[in-house]
Amino acid sequence: MLSIHTDEHFMRQALLLAERAYEEGEVPIGAVVVSQYQIIGKGYNQVERLQDPSAHAEMLAITAACEYLGSKYLSGCSLYVSIEPCLMCAGAIRWAQLSRLVYGAHEPKYGFSRLEAGVLHPKTRVTAGLMAQECGAIMKQFFQQKRNNSL
Amino acid sequence: MLSIHTDEHFMRQALLLAERAYEEGEVPIGAVVVSQYQIIGKGYNQVERLQDPSAHAEMLAITAACEYLGSKYLSGCSLYVSIEPCLMCAGAIRWAQLSRLVYGAHEPKYGFSRLEAGVLHPKTRVTAGLMAQECGAIMKQFFQQKRNNSL
Repeated sequence: MLSIHTDEHFMRQALLLAERAYEEGEVPIGAVVVSQYQIIGKGYNQVERLQDPSAHAEMLAITAACEYLGSKYLSGCSLYVSIEPCLMCAGAIRWAQLSRLVYGAHEPKYGFSRLEAGVLHPKTRVTAGLMAQECGAIMKQFFQQKRNNSL
Repeated sequence: MLSIHTDEHFMRQALLLAERAYEEGEVPIGAVVVSQYQIIGKGYNQVERLQDPSAHAEMLAITAACEYLGSKYLSGCSLYVSIEPCLMCAGAIRWAQLSRLVYGAHEPKYGFSRLEAGVLHPKTRVTAGLMAQECGAIMKQFFQQKRNNSL
């Protein structure tokens, strides 16, 4: 398999978007939607910039991908996101009927998986913990810096 | 209390938006965000028009209200929505820290409340079942017509 066709490649793209969020002072989470090894939607957290609580990386990537395909469904597509989605994003992933969700670091407080099954669409397969260390590290760094700044 | 300051008044505005959705062939759900007896955000379901699975009435109303206030938080505001929000919308309501959620008809299949507490923000008070009959009727009519059309 070509290296640009691997899960790690796409997670790295999500991480690059997370870094962009970081640089802009946003909680550093990035996401891409992939169809047939091609990125068709990207997003990074823009809650602060837009002052919109729904402007999560996953939501923006899903909306962009739907726009690209002209479809409200993303079956056949995969979403790569650096951090485990929250319930809102899991709900959107469900509505979009994404075929696969790949996420990096777990989100023990707001992650959807602490709730019972039923949040995602039954056809959505989940790969958890991909490059979790790297995905989590940028989050830790972000909040550490926030804390240092507020001291 | 002035009649334009009642829960029923604002739910009626949400219902008017649901009717607009209905006329456009969208699942007929409408929502308004209210701050100090004033509507600061409106939305009706636009999933079909935008081919965006996240374009639910509540999401659009929340985004509009945040835009209006220039804030990612809607504390002090109430959301009126004709049908019980799904998990995605409940997640957005949580992130926005809305002070109050008022919904009409229950949504036994996709409604957030069949899951455990923790979906909404702990400070969000919920009023359920307001004008449930009217709010549900337009949904029933919509899906009945859909079924008839597909016969």
